[in-house]
Amino acid sequence: MFEFTVTARAGRARTGVFTTPHGDLATPVFTPVGTQATVKTLTPAQVGELGAALVLANTYHLYLRPGDELVREMGGLHEFMQWPGPLLTDSGGFQVFSLADSRKIDDDGVTFKSHIDGSTHRFTPEKSIQIQENLGADIIMAFDECSDPNDHAYTVKAMERTHRWAERCLAAKTRPDQALFGIVQGGVRADLRAASAKFISSLPFPGIAIGGLSVGETKAEMHATLDVVMPLLPENKPRYLMGVGTPEDLINGVARGVDIFDCVLPTRLARHNAAFSPQGRLNLMNAVFARDKRPIDETCDCYTCRTFSRAYLRHLITAKEALAGTLLSIHNLRALIRLMETMRAAIQDGSFESRVPEWLRQWHGNAERASNTKDTK
Amino acid sequence: MFEFTVTARAGRARTGVFTTPHGDLATPVFTPVGTQATVKTLTPAQVGELGAALVLANTYHLYLRPGDELVREMGGLHEFMQWPGPLLTDSGGFQVFSLADSRKIDDDGVTFKSHIDGSTHRFTPEKSIQIQENLGADIIMAFDECSDPNDHAYTVKAMERTHRWAERCLAAKTRPDQALFGIVQGGVRADLRAASAKFISSLPFPGIAIGGLSVGETKAEMHATLDVVMPLLPENKPRYLMGVGTPEDLINGVARGVDIFDCVLPTRLARHNAAFSPQGRLNLMNAVFARDKRPIDETCDCYTCRTFSRAYLRHLITAKEALAGTLLSIHNLRALIRLMETMRAAIQDGSFESRVPEWLRQWHGNAERASNTKDTK
Repeated sequence: MFEFTVTARAGRARTGVFTTPHGDLATPVFTPVGTQATVKTLTPAQVGELGAALVLANTYHLYLRPGDELVREMGGLHEFMQWPGPLLTDSGGFQVFSLADSRKIDDDGVTFKSHIDGSTHRFTPEKSIQIQENLGADIIMAFDECSDPNDHAYTVKAMERTHRWAERCLAAKTRPDQALFGIVQGGVRADLRAASAKFISSLPFPGIAIGGLSVGETKAEMHATLDVVMPLLPENKPRYLMGVGTPEDLINGVARGVDIFDCVLPTRLARHNAAFSPQGRLNLMNAVFARDKRPIDETCDCYTCRTFSRAYLRHLITAKEALAGTLLSIHNLRALIRLMETMRAAIQDGSFESRVPEWLRQWHGNAERASNTKDTK
Repeated sequence: MFEFTVTARAGRARTGVFTTPHGDLATPVFTPVGTQATVKTLTPAQVGELGAALVLANTYHLYLRPGDELVREMGGLHEFMQWPGPLLTDSGGFQVFSLADSRKIDDDGVTFKSHIDGSTHRFTPEKSIQIQENLGADIIMAFDECSDPNDHAYTVKAMERTHRWAERCLAAKTRPDQALFGIVQGGVRADLRAASAKFISSLPFPGIAIGGLSVGETKAEMHATLDVVMPLLPENKPRYLMGVGTPEDLINGVARGVDIFDCVLPTRLARHNAAFSPQGRLNLMNAVFARDKRPIDETCDCYTCRTFSRAYLRHLITAKEALAGTLLSIHNLRALIRLMETMRAAIQDGSFESRVPEWLRQWHGNAERASNTKDTK
């Protein structure tokens, strides 16, 4: 049911097709985040028009509200949120570890307090799989522990726990129509990352994720970590770099062989009035745009850029109109999806490696770091 | 440039076509309100998909922000907000009179304080026309004074002022591509309404509006007022009942010969989680909908009803997701636009009068009064 075929290569970069029960994914692919079963401010029809292929939803949020059992009763997540294509859920692990003061980790799992009402809950690897089976996404994730990259002893402990939990997730899984991905951890230590990459690769996962990046390390550390991990992963399985997604990160990740990315950055920036552009990130609230008739990006093919001036977008922002968030989300998501389309085409036509420097220059002004945290309001 | 042709009649109800520089309007028509040059939460593409023909924007709001001169520089309101069809602007009068404590009226105009920053401004009939000419809508409105219907002496004074101002607006108008509508006032007194209807009808306006309703009077008073005014208006000009738009009001208005309606109710209700339905108004926040797989209205053809369950809408509301407002706005606007389509077809096929009782029964549970006030947040 889940097949991954590499269709072209350019250095370590590659294009591929990952077959899922809800359609084929052309990789490398950028995944919009729909935390609470909605890509914020957009209808599924609008998300589809962007060329989005895969959408991510968060297990932690949907478990708390509306509840994974309710989603199952409503026919599963595809039916509930009316996204016809492939879906991916995370394990809930990253979200509960982010709760910092209101969670307690042991070897069996994590006890945490809800950010909504303070009630106490417990996730274990088995519970995470059960929730994700109720939600019913095409790609589901092993329950892992993301450590502080600066705490070596903890990073070792968290990595080892992640490995035990990976085995327990595989044992707990029952649905044949879901692909369970294992997650490589190990902070920014090359020896730990190599050990984790080898261990996770040895298990029968149909895809491998790289977790624990974009959590405070430097860009150089992120790249070095990818340079250690990627060559150790099997060629015939898709590789998913979790929570990473500035334009620069996408270019660097694809060049290192990453197939799947997700990030809240495009929709979060939209809520903060910011737009990706080849001239660098624009803050559309700026008075300089009040009489600017140009679109955000004259080269962009999104509905927002085909239709509206910067002056109108600035007006919507200053007038606090919800449409501003919708139109900026459309643009920011389309910018990243279009960048992935461009890179896929270049891998296939052989121009990828020669164009990487040009893309990195072009998108440099947008490279400010995304924080890889949960996308609650 | 502005022609109105009556195409069918059923008692006092009629269908017609009003020709404007941005296309023909099939009447009777319901007009979504786009106060700040946006129908709240919807793209113009989505507004178009609803079958909306005419969109209203508010002169008071756009004068203050972004400024009518900026809109003119940007190519006018059609270009600025990218609404390709006919637009209507109000005169700003109703909005500034609503400011209650922060405005002062004299025979020449009104001095008022901005709700945004407290700055002082002045509208006169000439200023209102100048602003509306800068905005550039197809249909513009005379500057009028809406009185408290319970204050007889003031109602007389306001009506007389409205008549003088109507003449001044006609004299001030310069653009040939805008239709200036006069406004009948007179509170709920039959003698005053008759006098105002006759006076305004005597002036060379291409259309006539009925103002000062849905401002606190009873339904019976609204209907009695329409029964006095409508027979006195010229048959060959479109009639616009301002700020009125519960489903029941639309049915009663069409039956009395009204051609154009506008109301903030559909989008305002959407922001309060409420939806029109033949079972009465639904509050989708209600826990009873948590596992309800049905659409809001099984007979509705809108995107929301064709796509989403009540359970999903309730989830979006409880999760405070912006998409809830978008999806409910789509439904509520489509419900009224579809009701107008149904009434137009019935006027044309001769079934209108026999179906009015059925429609009034069907929509009764949605009849709670809209307050005719400005649609700021």
